[in-house]
Amino acid sequence: MNSFQTVGVIGKRRDPQVAPTVLALCQELQGLQRRVIVERDSAELAQVPADLERGTRQELAQRCDLVVVVGGDGTLLSVARDMAPAGVPILGVHQGRLGFMVDVRPEDMRTTLRAVFDGEYLREERLLLSSRVIHDGVAGPAQLAINDVVVRNMASIRMLEFETWLDDDFISQHRADGFIVSSPTGSTAYALSGGGPVLHPALEAISLVPICPHTLSDRPIVVGARQRVGIVLRGSSGVEAMCTCDGQTNQRLLPGDRIEVSCADARLSLIHPKSYRYFDILRNKLHWGRGPGAEPMPR
Amino acid sequence: MNSFQTVGVIGKRRDPQVAPTVLALCQELQGLQRRVIVERDSAELAQVPADLERGTRQELAQRCDLVVVVGGDGTLLSVARDMAPAGVPILGVHQGRLGFMVDVRPEDMRTTLRAVFDGEYLREERLLLSSRVIHDGVAGPAQLAINDVVVRNMASIRMLEFETWLDDDFISQHRADGFIVSSPTGSTAYALSGGGPVLHPALEAISLVPICPHTLSDRPIVVGARQRVGIVLRGSSGVEAMCTCDGQTNQRLLPGDRIEVSCADARLSLIHPKSYRYFDILRNKLHWGRGPGAEPMPR
Amino acid sequence: MNSFQTVGVIGKRRDPQVAPTVLALCQELQGLQRRVIVERDSAELAQVPADLERGTRQELAQRCDLVVVVGGDGTLLSVARDMAPAGVPILGVHQGRLGFMVDVRPEDMRTTLRAVFDGEYLREERLLLSSRVIHDGVAGPAQLAINDVVVRNMASIRMLEFETWLDDDFISQHRADGFIVSSPTGSTAYALSGGGPVLHPALEAISLVPICPHTLSDRPIVVGARQRVGIVLRGSSGVEAMCTCDGQTNQRLLPGDRIEVSCADARLSLIHPKSYRYFDILRNKLHWGRGPGAEPMPR
Amino acid sequence: MNSFQTVGVIGKRRDPQVAPTVLALCQELQGLQRRVIVERDSAELAQVPADLERGTRQELAQRCDLVVVVGGDGTLLSVARDMAPAGVPILGVHQGRLGFMVDVRPEDMRTTLRAVFDGEYLREERLLLSSRVIHDGVAGPAQLAINDVVVRNMASIRMLEFETWLDDDFISQHRADGFIVSSPTGSTAYALSGGGPVLHPALEAISLVPICPHTLSDRPIVVGARQRVGIVLRGSSGVEAMCTCDGQTNQRLLPGDRIEVSCADARLSLIHPKSYRYFDILRNKLHWGRGPGAEPMPR
Repeated sequence: MNSFQTVGVIGKRRDPQVAPTVLALCQELQGLQRRVIVERDSAELAQVPADLERGTRQELAQRCDLVVVVGGDGTLLSVARDMAPAGVPILGVHQGRLGFMVDVRPEDMRTTLRAVFDGEYLREERLLLSSRVIHDGVAGPAQLAINDVVVRNMASIRMLEFETWLDDDFISQHRADGFIVSSPTGSTAYALSGGGPVLHPALEAISLVPICPHTLSDRPIVVGARQRVGIVLRGSSGVEAMCTCDGQTNQRLLPGDRIEVSCADARLSLIHPKSYRYFDILRNKLHWGRGPGAEPMPR
Repeated sequence: MNSFQTVGVIGKRRDPQVAPTVLALCQELQGLQRRVIVERDSAELAQVPADLERGTRQELAQRCDLVVVVGGDGTLLSVARDMAPAGVPILGVHQGRLGFMVDVRPEDMRTTLRAVFDGEYLREERLLLSSRVIHDGVAGPAQLAINDVVVRNMASIRMLEFETWLDDDFISQHRADGFIVSSPTGSTAYALSGGGPVLHPALEAISLVPICPHTLSDRPIVVGARQRVGIVLRGSSGVEAMCTCDGQTNQRLLPGDRIEVSCADARLSLIHPKSYRYFDILRNKLHWGRGPGAEPMPR
Repeated sequence: MNSFQTVGVIGKRRDPQVAPTVLALCQELQGLQRRVIVERDSAELAQVPADLERGTRQELAQRCDLVVVVGGDGTLLSVARDMAPAGVPILGVHQGRLGFMVDVRPEDMRTTLRAVFDGEYLREERLLLSSRVIHDGVAGPAQLAINDVVVRNMASIRMLEFETWLDDDFISQHRADGFIVSSPTGSTAYALSGGGPVLHPALEAISLVPICPHTLSDRPIVVGARQRVGIVLRGSSGVEAMCTCDGQTNQRLLPGDRIEVSCADARLSLIHPKSYRYFDILRNKLHWGRGPGAEPMPR
Repeated sequence: MNSFQTVGVIGKRRDPQVAPTVLALCQELQGLQRRVIVERDSAELAQVPADLERGTRQELAQRCDLVVVVGGDGTLLSVARDMAPAGVPILGVHQGRLGFMVDVRPEDMRTTLRAVFDGEYLREERLLLSSRVIHDGVAGPAQLAINDVVVRNMASIRMLEFETWLDDDFISQHRADGFIVSSPTGSTAYALSGGGPVLHPALEAISLVPICPHTLSDRPIVVGARQRVGIVLRGSSGVEAMCTCDGQTNQRLLPGDRIEVSCADARLSLIHPKSYRYFDILRNKLHWGRGPGAEPMPR
């Protein structure tokens, strides 16, 4: 099989601990007759051989058939926002701590890569969010989010007042610390801490989670992925809020601003070993079904 | 327009308060040149004129183009399980208290009916659940549920132990008071009390909500409507549990029994006035956006 | 009875709507032979007669036997922090919207005052919190809080890492949006939105509520009022957090800072009509036991 | 020191796994010159030497200065209801799985006992609950509860309707699956699954937790331990409910019955090693501060 001829390699930023794995990964890929392009900073950090090709994330996005990420979910999130628009699939190798999306152990990396190149893998498409801020009737640039789009007050202690809309239907007005619009992928991140449900990753849905709402019946709502969510910031001048994608990119908001969130055209492709099962990871990450010491008192 | 030529009428069981509305409804339908069939018990309760045709629910399901229900959501739930398999749409008239599905006020009944017969209405399809219990390898009859399929312990104070599956994937083992499998329609009923999210009624999804789970991270999960949910009861002999549809039909369960829940082939058709908006009802029912007295202390 | 000879009057700041009530209140108090001192800003706003004595809040605290507040709970909170150290009791008159602590209707003001001056009233003592920030081993000034002491991240989207202590016992490390230390009075304010319980106002207890905690089992804890709560901010340089009392006074925090919260020596005295019942107010404010339209679907 | 001269020994019922520990415990106590009385069933199960004195639980309660329990929290709960009225303190030895109250590891049993007999221990008093059912104006016998008094519907799927009172004050009417009245000790058991807070074990308080309440703002309330909680069951004939103490003793309820719960006169005395810290156990049992794999996705 000729799949995945050109493979990109990206390690967690500024973390020397990923260097040995990045190095071993490059060697393995060369041994498997792949053309390797290493992301510049990762190449330097891992001191990969000088003959290995290097490139920016954008160059990797343009030229690679597959990108292997070494690090945690945070690194994968950041890489994913660059790769998803180009349709480049990602394989995640963790550093000893299983992630939701970085699911290959370093010690299984070699076996997994061989299997993947033999066509033995699962390919999973994840829905992404696209958000934009409309200020004074003018729409700003679209931002991509893998996990979530979050509206929060900057003066963090004061409640935010805002209204929400689904397509042209008014949902409600809210008084809360903020509001999370989450993809299924993001449903196990901030949205879960905020009281939202877990959404199965294959579900074509978006989760709306008010953060510490004033009204106790202001509960999470799950809507279809083809529906457009609108959030209109209210309040008098002096109110400052922030719109954040994946906890990584920020944009200021003023009263009257409207944030629109919908399903992005791009999808994130994740490559998993054949043995991958979503619920195995969920059980592990949420400590479900733990044995000794896992439970409260008998009832 | 010739739609809805034969119209069935069903009132809340044993509630004399619906009698005047049932009577007025019959007269109105006759005045609008509809063929009217009144459900037997309702006809008797409301003492409708002797010349009006009467029938069982099953006869109404076979012969009507539309059924008008007078009562609360509970009455509509019960009627819906009979009408949905036959594809007969339902219009709900409430008795002064707005319901999630009985959304026409008695005083608007006349205007609404005229509009509906003129083709001025919204038709909404709701996903239903089908459940069956597999005992000793033998599958029992399928049960239809509009809201939810609930597994509960009968000796109510003892926790139930069970495992859950999604298609062929193991989800988790649970120790809890029970488990709710809810349709979007049921997401505002018992599932909401159990901590589940609101699912938009058009969402093709099913909500899985553990009831008072022992493990605090055992949280609600929303999965796709085409996925099959399996619940396997565990525990030693002596354990007795119950599987209940819509809180109205019960079936005993023993350890080892497997309950399978999936999306039913049938859908429930609801007829609404053109002015119907789902979120208007949600706001009303959940006391959102209430004015004076609606909120806790200032922060 | 000679109680409450000198009575202070304070209205909500910059709200012309309280003016008529403030004015009527002053006249009523004069008619009842009380010495009246009106807070300066309120006097100006309400244009009270020139012969009425005016004073700052501090002067009222020193000289009054009772202070009547006209406004909402927010106004009462602010006044209470000034009056509590001096032991001056407060009576709260609301403006049409019942508050948790401003429980006298404007139209009942006259009757209530007469009864109070006749000794017909309930006096309720509320526990207050005292917090101080210890930076580089140096303790800052103590701050009084009626409702709560809240530690929050200033860059609101990033989680805060901190440790909590009870007296000399380590409670836990946390990753969360923040942490609320709440008095019983504050338990129906921000702490309730954060998932904390309602604490009966007479309970000698403090509630500890993590805000959107990362770990799902990181749940609210209620401890005794004589115990000292410590919160130590962790994280690398660049982290900035804020410590806020009652959502009204702010103090910056840096990694390594320790916030200590304990029960204050001062108590807040509230004067209520004899008919006052705490749960009547709670039911009203939380929409308990509402009739029509108050509930989800039948189960 | 002459403390704890007569020591009782009780193992988990019908669990052969506790036999070796029970046997070793008896020998150890004899070696330490204590008079030992073994509970009859435990003596038989562990086949203790014939010369060891045996007794019923009631005899142990009358004659022992200390009872050592070998098993889980469930066993300790059951023993505690017998020992608390007599004031006999309890030391709990677990079987490999740490409990909330059985906190001594079998391998530390020897060292712990020597230290305890040298006066090196912590003695902790836990508040207990006393409940009684008043039927047709006649009060039934008082029942003791270490953890909780729970009112639940017997036909488990139907909601229960009831009213709650605190002393003579009406709290609210509820529609819910049931209601939990919990001691601080029970706050980490069923009440925690139901959404209640953790109460510090030294807190003089009782937690009231509605189970899956219909009204979303019907939240847990914490009240003072000297207050009397009343629950009045409502509903028409045919309703059957159950009042259960510690999940172990049951009593039927009918509409109109009133359940009264207050702090018991008796307290439970627990003996702990000097190194015992409540929060160490809480962190362990609730998986707080876990390292690798303990958390959701990065935000």
